[in-house]
Amino acid sequence: MRILGIDPGTGILGFGVIDVSVKGKVTMVDAGVIRTPVKQPDSDRLFTIFEELNQIITELKPQALSVEKLFFSQNVTTAMSVSQARGVVLLLGKQYDLELHEYTPQQIKQAITGYGKADKKQMQEMVRVILGLSEVPKPDDCADALAAAICHSMTQQFPAA
Amino acid sequence: MRILGIDPGTGILGFGVIDVSVKGKVTMVDAGVIRTPVKQPDSDRLFTIFEELNQIITELKPQALSVEKLFFSQNVTTAMSVSQARGVVLLLGKQYDLELHEYTPQQIKQAITGYGKADKKQMQEMVRVILGLSEVPKPDDCADALAAAICHSMTQQFPAA
Repeated sequence: MRILGIDPGTGILGFGVIDVSVKGKVTMVDAGVIRTPVKQPDSDRLFTIFEELNQIITELKPQALSVEKLFFSQNVTTAMSVSQARGVVLLLGKQYDLELHEYTPQQIKQAITGYGKADKKQMQEMVRVILGLSEVPKPDDCADALAAAICHSMTQQFPAA
Repeated sequence: MRILGIDPGTGILGFGVIDVSVKGKVTMVDAGVIRTPVKQPDSDRLFTIFEELNQIITELKPQALSVEKLFFSQNVTTAMSVSQARGVVLLLGKQYDLELHEYTPQQIKQAITGYGKADKKQMQEMVRVILGLSEVPKPDDCADALAAAICHSMTQQFPAA
């Protein structure tokens, strides 16, 4: 199964695509970020996100989409900006009929490190180890997107967990 | 000029289409709401909004889009839900290359009633009078969307205001 993980945002949106074998082994297919200029109107920025993600989905053909859920205690302005981008991501998921899953940052941390309050560094190191990479994927948004994808692969393997 | 006004939301999204003559006279072309079931996943609901708005834009061919900006003091959960829908609306605006404008509720009230703190009832009554309707458009979201469209028509007439 191929999973596209997304860490949503308007200024920077992380994406990470992984393959999961029947035995549960995960490998990285692609990962990166989509950046949009602060000076542009929101509609232009959301359009860029839509177009670039559209291309990624068309090329890499994931079956599932795993999106990080917003952390509620963020400030409202940030929450609104992230939510606008999430709207576009969720729309695309439905347009391509992808199996859609959402996880909170805590659920992702729990799945990957076994500890819901793990820090960013621990998380990134686990992402590196799980994917067998020599270095932690940069920037953070990219590692976070891969973490969302890995989290979904784990909940698929151990549905009762 | 034909203007599409939007009062964004995921559960209920108001839309209102008006024509503005060269002399500034406004007439209502269409207005209504798009409702989506609470029980559905967000992606399904955003997809419905996208599809229905897509159809409205294709049929009525507005040149401009006037969207109500979120009021910042709302609670975060509502703000996030409204923002997801806004993301889809702004994306569509760009996809159709509509002239895009955003107004805060206060700007809309100011433009329509001449008073930034007008209450809902005053606003609705002014929308009714300006459009020459026999009754206030219902539900509120519909009147609010028309108000956003009218607000834009007024700032066009009096660009220095």
